[in-house]
Amino acid sequence: MTWLAVDWGTSRLRIWKNGNRDALIETDQGMNVLGADDYAPIIAAHDAEIAVVCGMAGARQGWREAPYSTVPCTPHHAPLTFQSGRTRVHILPGLSQSSPADVMRGEETQIAGFLALNEGWDGVICLPGTHTKWAHVSAGEVVSFQTFMTGELFALLSEASVLRHTLRQGHAPEAFADAVDTAMSRPAAIAAQLFRLRAENLLHDLAPDDAYARASGLLIGAELAAAKPYWLGQQVAVIGTGQMADNYAAALAAQGAAPARADATDTTLAGLKAAYEAL
Amino acid sequence: MTWLAVDWGTSRLRIWKNGNRDALIETDQGMNVLGADDYAPIIAAHDAEIAVVCGMAGARQGWREAPYSTVPCTPHHAPLTFQSGRTRVHILPGLSQSSPADVMRGEETQIAGFLALNEGWDGVICLPGTHTKWAHVSAGEVVSFQTFMTGELFALLSEASVLRHTLRQGHAPEAFADAVDTAMSRPAAIAAQLFRLRAENLLHDLAPDDAYARASGLLIGAELAAAKPYWLGQQVAVIGTGQMADNYAAALAAQGAAPARADATDTTLAGLKAAYEAL
Repeated sequence: MTWLAVDWGTSRLRIWKNGNRDALIETDQGMNVLGADDYAPIIAAHDAEIAVVCGMAGARQGWREAPYSTVPCTPHHAPLTFQSGRTRVHILPGLSQSSPADVMRGEETQIAGFLALNEGWDGVICLPGTHTKWAHVSAGEVVSFQTFMTGELFALLSEASVLRHTLRQGHAPEAFADAVDTAMSRPAAIAAQLFRLRAENLLHDLAPDDAYARASGLLIGAELAAAKPYWLGQQVAVIGTGQMADNYAAALAAQGAAPARADATDTTLAGLKAAYEAL
Repeated sequence: MTWLAVDWGTSRLRIWKNGNRDALIETDQGMNVLGADDYAPIIAAHDAEIAVVCGMAGARQGWREAPYSTVPCTPHHAPLTFQSGRTRVHILPGLSQSSPADVMRGEETQIAGFLALNEGWDGVICLPGTHTKWAHVSAGEVVSFQTFMTGELFALLSEASVLRHTLRQGHAPEAFADAVDTAMSRPAAIAAQLFRLRAENLLHDLAPDDAYARASGLLIGAELAAAKPYWLGQQVAVIGTGQMADNYAAALAAQGAAPARADATDTTLAGLKAAYEAL
């Protein structure tokens, strides 16, 4: 018997055979490059009896639409189940919130995985990414959540804006921390503070790695200011690895929030396993 | 005797022969697509004795670098003058500000033109654009100024982000005004409010023209909140035509600022003429 744990995102597909962390197949066959008929052959190639799928495969533009579950609710709900060749496919639904309107697909499985790995945990989970999510979790339910476009804004600024030649990734934790403070105390001004990086580079030779760290700090600082009702005085966990998640954790720590950390792959896989075991 | 008034921008070149508003030659031969040797033949083709040039032709990556004048100063300074074929070329310098670091090239000529058309005017001039400028003008000098990347952020969001299918330009002044208020009272949250447009479109069928107006209102509202020390209690003028300048003027009017309006072409040409007459 073979089963597949599948994280089918916008730009990336990851499959683990039999829930084995070391048996990863990773491709760029994300939703963005697939039509509705392209999913079945990709799964069929693995000749599995069962596939448990989270992420954008369940979106309207994905394989088959798995309607959202509405918060407050547990992060795991009955999947959309159908037969595809010899594989029984179970697509896990995302979460939606009516007011303020918000949606997630995939992160709910990381949240479920985090709760599977940390039984009885209550608090606020921050999932940094292209669209960073903050989820308030209590008694095993997602009570509410909020999405920020911070990651996508940073990508657009660093790759496609007038700042693209001014920013270069490096290691500049002090510049980052300063910029977080600047934006937290005056978040409205970030569109001016961002242009100032270009002017400081022209006039005062601001180093590109400092500029990069400051741009990131400005955007994350504004987000932390807005998300303060979420994290202030709460137990906080940051799910994710790499520079961006480290930045969120450092900024929260500087505010006294002392976040727990968890690995994104661990939590995704734990969430898919928990869904498989619940079938 | 022929002289050319030349506005040489990042993406656009405009030439008026003998300062005549109706004798406009407009092309997309902006700095972005030119090397340093490409400027002279373009000017030579017009067989003029004099060319007075403002904008990015004077940038480091332009034709010849015209060093910035530093504020506080008048918006017009001695041009960088050189011979190119039979044409005597005068490139007007931009303005810089040391702290907070900031730069402009081209807008100083619009400011000079506005002051030529409105003698003795004191107050704050707002120049909406890709990089919107706010300039505090007193006794014929630019005292200080501040640049916001608002226009470029909006272009990136509406053309290259997850919101690109959610936004469509239309006429939705109420949605715009609501969003300005939202962002002015809580500017930190705009990265969340922007994602909410996508979620409201998915969940509640938010109309794309309302979403477009709200995205614009969120960005401009945050800018107005940050620029409040500039415009509050001041005489304000908005230089520009079209939807974006109208939006700034409407948002300022809703705040009780009652801005004067001026046309961008009129002010540019008046500034170039004033520089020509001062040669």
